[in-house]
Amino acid sequence: MAKYEQTVTFHRSNRASSVHRAIVFIHGGAWIDKNNTPHDFDELSQCLLDLADGNPSFSIYAIEYRLSPTVKHPAHICDVIENLVKLVEQEGIEELNLMGHSVGATLIWQVLSGIPSLANVKSFATPDKQKLIRKLLKRCYLVDGIYSLSELLEEYPSYDYFVSQAFKQIEDYDDPKHSQVTIPLNADIYVIYSYRDELLSPRQSNYLCSALQKLNKPFQSYWDDFGEHNEVYSNARVAQYILHTMQMH
Amino acid sequence: MAKYEQTVTFHRSNRASSVHRAIVFIHGGAWIDKNNTPHDFDELSQCLLDLADGNPSFSIYAIEYRLSPTVKHPAHICDVIENLVKLVEQEGIEELNLMGHSVGATLIWQVLSGIPSLANVKSFATPDKQKLIRKLLKRCYLVDGIYSLSELLEEYPSYDYFVSQAFKQIEDYDDPKHSQVTIPLNADIYVIYSYRDELLSPRQSNYLCSALQKLNKPFQSYWDDFGEHNEVYSNARVAQYILHTMQMH
Repeated sequence: MAKYEQTVTFHRSNRASSVHRAIVFIHGGAWIDKNNTPHDFDELSQCLLDLADGNPSFSIYAIEYRLSPTVKHPAHICDVIENLVKLVEQEGIEELNLMGHSVGATLIWQVLSGIPSLANVKSFATPDKQKLIRKLLKRCYLVDGIYSLSELLEEYPSYDYFVSQAFKQIEDYDDPKHSQVTIPLNADIYVIYSYRDELLSPRQSNYLCSALQKLNKPFQSYWDDFGEHNEVYSNARVAQYILHTMQMH
Repeated sequence: MAKYEQTVTFHRSNRASSVHRAIVFIHGGAWIDKNNTPHDFDELSQCLLDLADGNPSFSIYAIEYRLSPTVKHPAHICDVIENLVKLVEQEGIEELNLMGHSVGATLIWQVLSGIPSLANVKSFATPDKQKLIRKLLKRCYLVDGIYSLSELLEEYPSYDYFVSQAFKQIEDYDDPKHSQVTIPLNADIYVIYSYRDELLSPRQSNYLCSALQKLNKPFQSYWDDFGEHNEVYSNARVAQYILHTMQMH
């Protein structure tokens, strides 16, 4: 198995309920950072398990994807979809919840929005797989994410060092405000942002909220101090929020 | 008892828990509309009761306040504080949750922010009462509210017909972005907005979110179609959200 196909299983639910629910984590790292891995979520998973007395009503996984500059967009999102489909099939997942941090949130936004620019690209061999994942999607937690590359580079011109490694041109990315996104009706969106994020100002999360508003798409948001950019995905209150909203039906 | 002192009791909790928790509703109506009363919340209360099988872990009330043009600001907020204190003392409320619709949300924002402009006004006889209420505050649900009068009049110049009845001058109102607000640390803020509101665009709720962000104040928000302006306070999903977040500790 190639490294990017690696899936970490933190918890397999005992299937007391008839439906197999799962949450899958997708890490960040600016598409390039080898230090961000599925194990970014070791602490958050433990936290979820502790909060649920060791027995949450859902399984907990994290998946991997290839990094740039070895590959460029759309390889990351293709890997994510491929790996999600494999996981769903292997584990018999019937309700899929996703939580992404930083560009992990970007990747989930791409799943959610249907990646319009790739709809007619022949090399993008996953339309059916994308459809399957979107059908199972229930909740998406988008944590301190990037949603508009043009706004990102306007605010942080130096971030071009990683954006240029991940995208041939930023126009290849579907900007939430400028593309015809089609969000699955069954998917609930949660936008989370930490006031202490030192790498991303609130601008990106506000951009997404504003795009969702313009589309009249339902969403919830949660703004608080969850620590610095790379602390948010270990934060106990983020775990509590996930557990709590996972209990809403 | 004067009409503005009227309190409607929808439910008295059976106090199974040691702490007497309560939610109190404050209606809207642009400070002037006699058609909005504590009974605006008849349906929402019934909905909360139904969702909790007739036995929520908190009491449910709604309070009244005098209307303009008979009185002007700060009479509305003084009435709210006076009536809240009376209710808290009569019923022995130990944890206070507030839900306000339209200018009911404005009034709650004034309680939350500490109404800085009135801090040194002698005629404002309620600083101790305000302090008591703020101490007991746990959750504030601000639903399709007005938060900046200057932005409101810029967007809807015709709304001056009611603003001018309620305020001698709009500078008497503390704008969230231009005043030194002090939000109680124990108070959780929930901003709710219905996409189908025909009287208020998302601008006011966004204004509040942006003000809270500038203050680094924690908050959650919920954006969806909860019906038109005067339907939101009867919406079942709003009731569900309140019930659900009231269960978070």
